[in-house]
Formats: sequence, C-alpha cells, structure tokens
Amino acid sequence: MTSDTPTPLGELLRLREAHLGKALSIAHGKPLHITHGSMQYLYAADGTRYLDLVNNVSHVGHSNPRVTQACAHQMGLLNTNTRYVYNGLTEYLGRIADTLPETLSVGFLVNSGSEANELAVRIARAHTGAHDMVVVEGAYHGHTGMLVDLSPYKFRGPGGKGEPEPWVHVLPIPDSYRRDGVDFPAEARLAIEGAGRFAGLLIETMLSCAGQVPLPEGYLAAVCRAVREQGGLLIADEVQVGFGRVGSHMWAFEESGVIPDIVVMGKPMGNGHPMAAVFTTPEIAASFEQMEWFSTFGGNPVSCAIGMAVMDCIEHDGLMARAEQLGGRFMQRLVELQDKHPIIGDVRGRGLFLGFELVSDLSTLEPATEEAGQLVNEMRRRGVLLSTDGPHHNVIKIKPPMVLNEEDIDTTLEHLDEVLTSL
Amino acid sequence: MTSDTPTPLGELLRLREAHLGKALSIAHGKPLHITHGSMQYLYAADGTRYLDLVNNVSHVGHSNPRVTQACAHQMGLLNTNTRYVYNGLTEYLGRIADTLPETLSVGFLVNSGSEANELAVRIARAHTGAHDMVVVEGAYHGHTGMLVDLSPYKFRGPGGKGEPEPWVHVLPIPDSYRRDGVDFPAEARLAIEGAGRFAGLLIETMLSCAGQVPLPEGYLAAVCRAVREQGGLLIADEVQVGFGRVGSHMWAFEESGVIPDIVVMGKPMGNGHPMAAVFTTPEIAASFEQMEWFSTFGGNPVSCAIGMAVMDCIEHDGLMARAEQLGGRFMQRLVELQDKHPIIGDVRGRGLFLGFELVSDLSTLEPATEEAGQLVNEMRRRGVLLSTDGPHHNVIKIKPPMVLNEEDIDTTLEHLDEVLTSL
Repeated sequence: MTSDTPTPLGELLRLREAHLGKALSIAHGKPLHITHGSMQYLYAADGTRYLDLVNNVSHVGHSNPRVTQACAHQMGLLNTNTRYVYNGLTEYLGRIADTLPETLSVGFLVNSGSEANELAVRIARAHTGAHDMVVVEGAYHGHTGMLVDLSPYKFRGPGGKGEPEPWVHVLPIPDSYRRDGVDFPAEARLAIEGAGRFAGLLIETMLSCAGQVPLPEGYLAAVCRAVREQGGLLIADEVQVGFGRVGSHMWAFEESGVIPDIVVMGKPMGNGHPMAAVFTTPEIAASFEQMEWFSTFGGNPVSCAIGMAVMDCIEHDGLMARAEQLGGRFMQRLVELQDKHPIIGDVRGRGLFLGFELVSDLSTLEPATEEAGQLVNEMRRRGVLLSTDGPHHNVIKIKPPMVLNEEDIDTTLEHLDEVLTSL
Repeated sequence: MTSDTPTPLGELLRLREAHLGKALSIAHGKPLHITHGSMQYLYAADGTRYLDLVNNVSHVGHSNPRVTQACAHQMGLLNTNTRYVYNGLTEYLGRIADTLPETLSVGFLVNSGSEANELAVRIARAHTGAHDMVVVEGAYHGHTGMLVDLSPYKFRGPGGKGEPEPWVHVLPIPDSYRRDGVDFPAEARLAIEGAGRFAGLLIETMLSCAGQVPLPEGYLAAVCRAVREQGGLLIADEVQVGFGRVGSHMWAFEESGVIPDIVVMGKPMGNGHPMAAVFTTPEIAASFEQMEWFSTFGGNPVSCAIGMAVMDCIEHDGLMARAEQLGGRFMQRLVELQDKHPIIGDVRGRGLFLGFELVSDLSTLEPATEEAGQLVNEMRRRGVLLSTDGPHHNVIKIKPPMVLNEEDIDTTLEHLDEVLTSL
C-alpha cells in the first residue's frame, strides 16, 4: 500500500518526469503537493490549508464521509457490470431521471465526460442519420479523437490543426461582454442554417473554457429552434455546470425553458469517482438500439452507490439552495469590488459557477492576462486556490466545492481586495 | 443510500425497461439477479452460489477486502486530479513501468479501455503523422466512434456499416484451428504492405472477441517487423489478457519476445474500479506533447491506491504462478474431455484465458452454436457461469477471477462432462 507519509516534492517531481506523459501540465504554475482534503479545503505537505475555489469535481466536498462510506460499503458487497441485474442501478437512473424533464427518461452510464459526449454524438448520428456537428467557439468537450475535433479550444490551440474539420461547424461565442451589441440569436441562426444537414448542436449550457460565459437570454431557445428546423438534435453538455451548481435549478438548461434532446453530465456526478451519463428520450434511445452498446465499468454497483450518496448530499444538505445563496453573496461582493477596482471589467455567472474578467482598459477591453496570472499566484500564496480561463486567460474562474461557507467567501473577498490594490 | 434488501426481480426489470438504454443487453439469456460477490463466487438473490468463470475484470476476486480497504482509506484522505502533485501516482506508474520492458517507461492513466485505446491511436497518429490504422478481423477495441470503426466485431455486426472505413485496414484472423495450413505471417505481411502508410497496428496479444485465439508462434514478431517497415507503430491491446492472466508472463506480448511501441491495459487494472492505461517510450510520448492532454479522473489518488492494491494481490498472493498452474490443470482436463466428446473441436489459450470450441462435424468444423448456448445455460443451472464468444458464438470462454482453486476446476469439469454427455 502507498505510504501516507509525504514524499519530498523533489523526488515526486523526478518520478513524474520519468513516468508521466508530459502532455499533462501541472496546476497553479509551481507544483502544489497536496496530502489530504476535507470538504472545501485542501492541505499541502507543508501544512498549509488552501480554500479550494476551483475543483467543481469535488462537488459535495473533498473526502466527503458519506460518499466514502457508500463506496466502501458497496465495494465490500458487490461490484460487477450491467449485464447482470442488481440493486442500485435502476434506482440511481430513476433518481437522476426524476431531476430531468419527464421526456428525458432513458440513461446510459459511462466513466467520464469524454465517454459521455462521445456517446451523445453517436446517439445523435444514429437518430438523425446525419454526420456533421455544430459546436460553439472556445468550447472543450473531451479528449478523444472525435471530441478534440469538436473542441475549438483544442483544435485552434497549441498543437491543433487550426481549422475545423469539414464536418464541424462553429458558432461564434455569444459573449455579451466582449461582443456587446451583437444579435446573438440571429447570428447563430444564420450559422446553423449555413451548416446544412447535421446530427446535432453540442453546447455547454454555460460556457466554461470559453471564459465562464452564461448564455444570453433567449439564446438557447433560439438555437434550439434553428437546430430542430435543420433536423438536428440539441445536446446540452452539463458536465461542468450540472448537479445544482447554478443554484436556481439542478441543470443549467432549465433556466432557458428549453428541453434538450440529449443531456450529458459528468464531473461532479461521483465527487471524483470516474462516472458520467447521457440521458435522452425513449424515442431517440430507440434509434441507437441497432448496434449493441456496452461499457465494462459504466453503471457498476459501486459507481451507482457513490452517485446516490452524492445526490443524498445535494438533497439532504440543501446544497442547491446554498449554491444560490452563497453564489448571490459572492456575486454581490465581486460587483462591489468591481466598483472599486476598474481592472475588473466584468463579473458574471450563476450560483457557484462564477467568473470575473480582468482588463487593462475599460474601453478597448484589452485583456489583463499577466495581472490575472499574478492574482492567481498571490491568492494561492494567501491560501486560496483560483485559476484563469477564457481565450485570453484573463478570466478568474470560481467553481468551488458546494460546501463552502460565508466566512470563506468574505475572507476571499478581503484577500482579493488587497491583491487587486497591490497589482 | 441504496437498500441492500434485494428488490424483486420483476420490479428491477420494469425499472430497467423504463430507464436503461436498450442498446445494452443482459448476460446469460435469462436475467441473473446478483446481490453479492466474494472472490471467485457471485451470489444470487435466491441464495444460489455461482462459480464465476467469465468476469476477468474481478481479477483478484469479487469484493477483495485488500482492494476495498485501500480505496476507503484513500477516499477518506484525498481524491483529486493530476494537475496537483500527490503521493501514489508516480509510485503506481513506476510500479507498472517496472513490469514492462525498460523502454516503455512513460504512462498515461485514464478511466476505461476505450479511453486508453483512443489515446493510443491519438499518440500513434501524432508520432507517425499518418492517419490510417490496421486491425485484426473479429477484434473489439471499444465503444467510442473511432473505436467502433476500428472494431470489425462491431462494424461487421448488427447495426454496423458492414465494410471498414477507407482509413481502416483489416488483417485476416490468424486462427490456426479454422484456417489450418495458412502461412499467417506471410498473409499478414502482404496485407500490411498493401495498407500503405499508416499510424499503427492495434492488435490484441491474444484475440478475445474473435474467439479466445492465441496468436500463432512467430506471428507477432512478423507483423511487428512489417508494421515498422511501413513506418507504423505496434500497439498491443492487453485490456483483456494483461496483469498476469497468461501465467507465464505479466503481459501476453512477452511470450513473443516482441517489444510493442505502445501497450494498452484496462479491465483487471482496478478490479472493477474504472481505470486503464497507456504506456509507451519517452520518444513516442514526446511526439504527443504538442497538444496538452488531460483526464479529469485518470490517475486520481483513489484509482492509484486501488491499482496498487491490485498489484499487491497479484504479487503477494502469487496469482501469476497460480494462473499458470491452475490454467495448466484446466487445459489438461479440457483436453481429456475433448478425447471423450468429439463436439469439442479445439481447446486453446494460456493460463486462465482459455476457450474451447464446439463443432458438430470434426471435418467441416460446422459450428455447434446451439449446443454452445445450451451448455452455457445448463452450466448456469448447475451454478457455473460461462459464456460464448467468437464469430459463430460457439467458443466457450473461460477467464475467471484469478483466485479460484483446484476444486472449482474439478467440479466444473465434472459438470461439463455430464452436460456434454446430455447434449
């Protein structure tokens, strides 16, 4: 068994150098050697406690005891695959289905958001008979071959081909801050009509890698109409924002009143345990029955027990209501900070999925990329983990475990005020 | 939390009907309602104990306490992602690297065999600059869009397109039983040369879905030479057969003396926990550094602790030596059975990855598909889980948890003798 005694950082880094693929980079510039976690906090080998404001995967808290216990209990009892019938699988699927619009009643369980988005696209293609896909500029949907082609964040980024494949159509970012005044629904409709025949639009219901951008009001409804007119399906990627993070609803798409054809969920689903899902209608699922589909690990009894415990935490601990309340407080205090520090060009988000954008000039919106990096580093020195996102790496993203408290927020804002003053 | 009290089977099936994608079929014809597992045994809701001879995922035994304990311990301490530095990741990668040829020192951890094969192909394409791939007839490599295109078992099967994509080249099955007398290395070389420029050959080091077919002697060395002459990489898919199952070696490719360029491992790696890996050389990994690669869950501390516990079980409990010894006993007794029952056309395999093929005519090799199904059902009635595989569904596959014992084998053989007599 692995020892719990921390290995010296230098030795760990030497071993990473030797054995770990270097396509993987380390968070927070300087490596952070973490030894344990507890709810909203991570603890480093040198004893420092960090408030974690970036790891949305640890949705109900690092090392949440309810999740650990559910996992250990089920692992001691049974772990097998969905070719067998066992308690837990259908209860879990039913529980998730109960949080979705009634039509989205059929679920597929897999092991990651990448597997889930892959499956969603396969299902959309089987149902429509079309092959092309539409995505949004700046989006990241996963690390498989096809999903890199469907992720402008990757194919336009370092090592990418630069241009989309002929079967990929890209909608401009509906960013109300940087592209103020554009008629986004009209712009999207034109691009969707221009795409011809396609299987679906894969869209995050709040844009994450693109810079924590909420969709403008009416946008999702408009693109949904345009997509369906072309015979395509609307696939809502809720991997980053689902499971009550937006506070007002369990799923971010619910705000828009639109019912997607397929919903993809992932990251927080197992609080760090590898699990993800695709839900769709019985009619669309039926189109996918021609070829047998099977995931060795997807929907195993341990994953289901963990998923169930996460849902228990969300419900019993009232985490959605807390996300709304705490997110509101966070947002309000950030807006106050914006009044004081003109470098904050925009504050945006919903619930505990927030972002604020740093600019060096409020008229040209010149990104304050360097300052954003400095802010993250200085906040880390003060024990608060944040990170940057967006095409210019100048958006500070906030998506903490949902179990933080008012004091965490107030302390963060005090530090932010001091750091912004010193920049 | 999910109740441990078994739900009535009818109710579970009704809920599956309502919520589970029907592209997923149930094992063993009639649904088997399993409530718990212990090492080589699964227990049904009606109290029946089944000897499990098919679930190679439960490599070190169902509900293995060492694995459960390692998981619970680490979950209580820390679960995070590889952007942080923590104990356990590099120790685990190093431990796996130590079982591989020295050159294969760089690892990538993911959540399933599908993700691992996807990554292996992406790496091969990045390294060679070529796009085409070569695979073997009858192979199954995973459920993503690209891997279905690379799996003749899928694209030639129900719901498939029938023919390979233009970028996919298929080698005939080197099946020494059904295609006796063919010069397989020469046949493969011709096909590989005909493929032109390609990124790699993705090949299981023992064919599984194709019918538990060991590669003929000299075959892997010959195809490896041909592949490299064309500028391609040899990708060994060890997802089904790795981790000591073949008994003589930790990896099935080792038998051939060939060192692959990329090795893919999965199923037994976490004893049911979703994890898988790709290992390659530092030179090949370096070609993949142009674009950042990240898996949210891959290589998390809990997966590493579980993987480490599985390796502990394999080593401390001497499971490789047991696989060789028990597999030898199994094989010998099956060969004896073959002498008595002419319906057994062939017995084959290595260690605890075995198969026997039923034929109704020893000269035409007419597949005894119906009898194979009857045998599986009757063995199940007697408390032994087996299943069929191969293009004609007439191969009985045997790949049990590696913790079974001599008595399990002897009892199985007695039942098999009686069932074959009654057919």
